[in-house]
Amino acid sequence: MNDISNKSGRKKLIGVFDSGIGGLTVLREITRLLPSENTVYLGDTARVPYGSKSKQTVERYSVEDANFLVRHNIKLLVTACNTASAYALTRLKNEFDIPVIGVIEPGARAAVAATIANKIGVIGTEGTIKSSAYCAAIKSINPAVSTFVKACPLFVPLVEEGWANDEVTAVIASRYLEDIKGSGVDTLVLGCTHYPLLKETIGAIMGKSVALVDSAASTANEVKRILTDRGLLNDGSPGEAVRKFFVTDSPERFLTVGRRFFGDGLDQAELAFLE
Amino acid sequence: MNDISNKSGRKKLIGVFDSGIGGLTVLREITRLLPSENTVYLGDTARVPYGSKSKQTVERYSVEDANFLVRHNIKLLVTACNTASAYALTRLKNEFDIPVIGVIEPGARAAVAATIANKIGVIGTEGTIKSSAYCAAIKSINPAVSTFVKACPLFVPLVEEGWANDEVTAVIASRYLEDIKGSGVDTLVLGCTHYPLLKETIGAIMGKSVALVDSAASTANEVKRILTDRGLLNDGSPGEAVRKFFVTDSPERFLTVGRRFFGDGLDQAELAFLE
Repeated sequence: MNDISNKSGRKKLIGVFDSGIGGLTVLREITRLLPSENTVYLGDTARVPYGSKSKQTVERYSVEDANFLVRHNIKLLVTACNTASAYALTRLKNEFDIPVIGVIEPGARAAVAATIANKIGVIGTEGTIKSSAYCAAIKSINPAVSTFVKACPLFVPLVEEGWANDEVTAVIASRYLEDIKGSGVDTLVLGCTHYPLLKETIGAIMGKSVALVDSAASTANEVKRILTDRGLLNDGSPGEAVRKFFVTDSPERFLTVGRRFFGDGLDQAELAFLE
Repeated sequence: MNDISNKSGRKKLIGVFDSGIGGLTVLREITRLLPSENTVYLGDTARVPYGSKSKQTVERYSVEDANFLVRHNIKLLVTACNTASAYALTRLKNEFDIPVIGVIEPGARAAVAATIANKIGVIGTEGTIKSSAYCAAIKSINPAVSTFVKACPLFVPLVEEGWANDEVTAVIASRYLEDIKGSGVDTLVLGCTHYPLLKETIGAIMGKSVALVDSAASTANEVKRILTDRGLLNDGSPGEAVRKFFVTDSPERFLTVGRRFFGDGLDQAELAFLE
């Protein structure tokens, strides 16, 4: 690559997709760490959730999501959804010739860095847990680490209902986390983009000695590392950064609920047609 | 219609679609009442749920579901999903030249027949409640009836988690039903195909004096009435009845969870491609 192609390359967008709104927590970390970067986000809100669906279906949806973002001239693709990362990352890496980053490996790396007891718990959707993707990633970094897993299907609907800090959620979380807590882990991976909103509730159950790790910050670090390595970091001013948002279902609900995930700066979203 | 066309018409299938597995409760009532009828069921499990999605999206999905069933040479179409009935029934009736039955009107009729106080509560998904379809149907049957509504987004995930009779579900149900209970209704419409599985939990909260009405049985009666009127009731033997099941996501989960809704007789399902 020469300077001219890199200059135009740097202005290109970072593409981020998710099954719905949860991936906004990952986008938020990327824009915090790299405020000058132009970004385009796609939430597949017409087909959400991915967490209870089969590998075959999640893989097909992920390729469609990625194709949509690639048409926006992106320089890097982030699979912000844990289930999509678990089921479709290999396929996406083969299919596209730009760097593709999932959230599983960054999360696994952060968890291995945090554990002292070499015991890590992982919670996520049915699909993410069934795929064993976190366990495989953790073992490949450090085979000495033991993992303890639990699917928590009610966490996403509870967060979407706005009950993240509700006593009912605490009761449900206690039940889901009972075995993992009993196993003596000192680190717990919040393996779904909705779960960081439950940090308070989960933290109260697990206790202060257990580190809660989510993938968002370490995924943002990975994005920065790859763009730096390739000379593709944008050098424009943060004030000029483009933020595009697309959803496959009506933007209305996305904008309302999405603010809980992204904070300010989510003012408009356009309807995208993938099928 | 002459005798010959009616004879071949009688052998045709009854098509039933739903966003996923819940519509099996409606299919079960139809096959109980009309055991000789040939049936084909489609669960759109790759895009479930419909209840939190927009009218525009639910309408588009419903037309695709109906088109799939119409290709199976059906004599009557049942929209077993409450949200699809609320948002898409008019469109489906216009689009297809066979009788199309939703679950809202039969449910409304059963509720109006049951109430003495002329006060009816309605619970359902966000979409069904937002559409006001039940209230409109109830008012058109008897304008003197007052309605009290509540969306209960956590009920579907709780049932799918297998916690229908769990104490956590009882706590959540108490909260959802508090206002409706206080309003003095004597009849409550279970306006979502998953909710009949919560009858025990909801009944314990509402008390014995409140009638719980679901649409399944009265929708089956409506199917019988229309087929009888048109001379299209199948006169074959129940033992020969064809039962076809299709789903848009992997059949595995559908078969496991579906048995809670349909009981025995759900042994196989095929993958359907709509898009």
